[in-house]
Amino acid sequence: MNNNKIIKDAYLESITNKRCGDKIEELLYIQNKILNAKKIVVATNNKKKFDIINNILISLFKNYDKPLPTIEKLDLPTNSVDLTRFPAINKGLIAVDTSDADIVIARGRLGAPGSGSMLIIMNNKGRCLSASLSPTSLIHKKDIEDAVKDELNEALERIGINIDISI
Amino acid sequence: MNNNKIIKDAYLESITNKRCGDKIEELLYIQNKILNAKKIVVATNNKKKFDIINNILISLFKNYDKPLPTIEKLDLPTNSVDLTRFPAINKGLIAVDTSDADIVIARGRLGAPGSGSMLIIMNNKGRCLSASLSPTSLIHKKDIEDAVKDELNEALERIGINIDISI
Amino acid sequence: MNNNKIIKDAYLESITNKRCGDKIEELLYIQNKILNAKKIVVATNNKKKFDIINNILISLFKNYDKPLPTIEKLDLPTNSVDLTRFPAINKGLIAVDTSDADIVIARGRLGAPGSGSMLIIMNNKGRCLSASLSPTSLIHKKDIEDAVKDELNEALERIGINIDISI
Amino acid sequence: MNNNKIIKDAYLESITNKRCGDKIEELLYIQNKILNAKKIVVATNNKKKFDIINNILISLFKNYDKPLPTIEKLDLPTNSVDLTRFPAINKGLIAVDTSDADIVIARGRLGAPGSGSMLIIMNNKGRCLSASLSPTSLIHKKDIEDAVKDELNEALERIGINIDISI
Repeated sequence: MNNNKIIKDAYLESITNKRCGDKIEELLYIQNKILNAKKIVVATNNKKKFDIINNILISLFKNYDKPLPTIEKLDLPTNSVDLTRFPAINKGLIAVDTSDADIVIARGRLGAPGSGSMLIIMNNKGRCLSASLSPTSLIHKKDIEDAVKDELNEALERIGINIDISI
Repeated sequence: MNNNKIIKDAYLESITNKRCGDKIEELLYIQNKILNAKKIVVATNNKKKFDIINNILISLFKNYDKPLPTIEKLDLPTNSVDLTRFPAINKGLIAVDTSDADIVIARGRLGAPGSGSMLIIMNNKGRCLSASLSPTSLIHKKDIEDAVKDELNEALERIGINIDISI
Repeated sequence: MNNNKIIKDAYLESITNKRCGDKIEELLYIQNKILNAKKIVVATNNKKKFDIINNILISLFKNYDKPLPTIEKLDLPTNSVDLTRFPAINKGLIAVDTSDADIVIARGRLGAPGSGSMLIIMNNKGRCLSASLSPTSLIHKKDIEDAVKDELNEALERIGINIDISI
Repeated sequence: MNNNKIIKDAYLESITNKRCGDKIEELLYIQNKILNAKKIVVATNNKKKFDIINNILISLFKNYDKPLPTIEKLDLPTNSVDLTRFPAINKGLIAVDTSDADIVIARGRLGAPGSGSMLIIMNNKGRCLSASLSPTSLIHKKDIEDAVKDELNEALERIGINIDISI
């Protein structure tokens, strides 16, 4: 598979000390992986947060003129991940391990209690394709809707995917 | 120790489904942990990146009127972390495991090749206290100096520490 | 998928405090996953270790009257995993991320330098299906061939797969 | 610190491809770390399992003529770790992050549901010093007391610590 070749090449560059930053084919691979997903699982069982993410994804696939994937929410309680060192990452892995999603989107605490939140986009094996962070809610005063929206937006933009490509 | 109590309480809230976001004592604990560090190790062996971070830290401790900790760079090659799933996190853990630092600051790739970079602040056990992300360098066109500076700034601001408190 | 249902059920048992040990359908799932693999990647680029594992696997599939999967070795240097906290686990993840194997078998150091070795069997997403440990080589005096053979044997036996079922 | 030097040297050997197995000073470091612990936390809130481990540790320190450390059990429910990829490891990390123990001993599931159990010995930063595995309980028919006893025994023996040195 092409993907495996890209990762293997990047590994070899790192081992031989020849790596100099992300490459365009790596970025295109990540973009294609997300935009050609057949099934996306959102690792939350909070209806409100799911709806926000779902709506953004519907616009995204429409704007890119791509078939809309199945978008599901994880029907498992996930608060137990807060006992791990990286709650958002481990929330994503629960979705990876209990579904056959191509892409998982998880949102949760970044690290230690007090460390604010992380939204992470993973592939079907649990690898991190992109992410974004929000300050601790004690500092930012956004409502949860805006926070989640901005996070998904930012996680996509930093890898060159723009939710609203018409603008 | 007070810290252990804070984390234990947060765990119990999560298990019993009573957690509702970060608490002020958790944030203060993180801030104090960083601002009272005796030794900070910066997990890079790139002289230029180290100097940028070192200079910001010197201003920070001066502005907060705190004694300047020992600030050292890790004298180990770290490119091998790029073969792990979370390179920046694993770079930080190398510094945690080979030093007696109170605080470790690491910068590296966030996840898969192409996923942009992460700066992470860890405690002496390898727990994540804060972090920040940059878009893949294919997208942002900042020079490395500005990128590192903005990342450290943001990682501190999102937990309520402002580098330039006089402004 | 059936598998996802098994894992989801196990998760729900754990969250609701009703879990009481491994279940027969979980064990059968793991056994079937291994015995019906189409492609196995052995995460070593040491020819000798690969040959030992390859030979055991050939006997195994023959004894169970199952079609022999493609068995490949990872053609990447992996010594860099020794800088991570769990070298054998991270060696396995390199194979997971650079191949389309159903099953990955990795062997490497268990943890800190001096902690002896681990052989681990993972699925295509990087989940651990079984493993075995050897004492540090300073203590056991087996040659490497016997050590690897015993480890693979033990990793399979502890989940109810017997290499030599005729005996 | 001596320890950091040992780990740094091991890392450099691995990076430069000169590593050839565990070294005697690494083993001695691990042994000393365990036998000179001031505080050991056993990551279980099961009274019976704690008592077994506590009793073995009391004999151990007596036989080695070492001062008995404080030995405590973790007073936190830990069943939520079963939702992570490596439950025993994550159970240990909960003890590392909520206590000031020198040494943590955790026992839990190795990996996926059905994969049997692992006992792990960690240092104060969460690094793995040793471990041992048991087959899934569907296969071994030991009672829990004997299983835990054998596991702790084996985890110590494989790094050259013998519970009953008089024999």
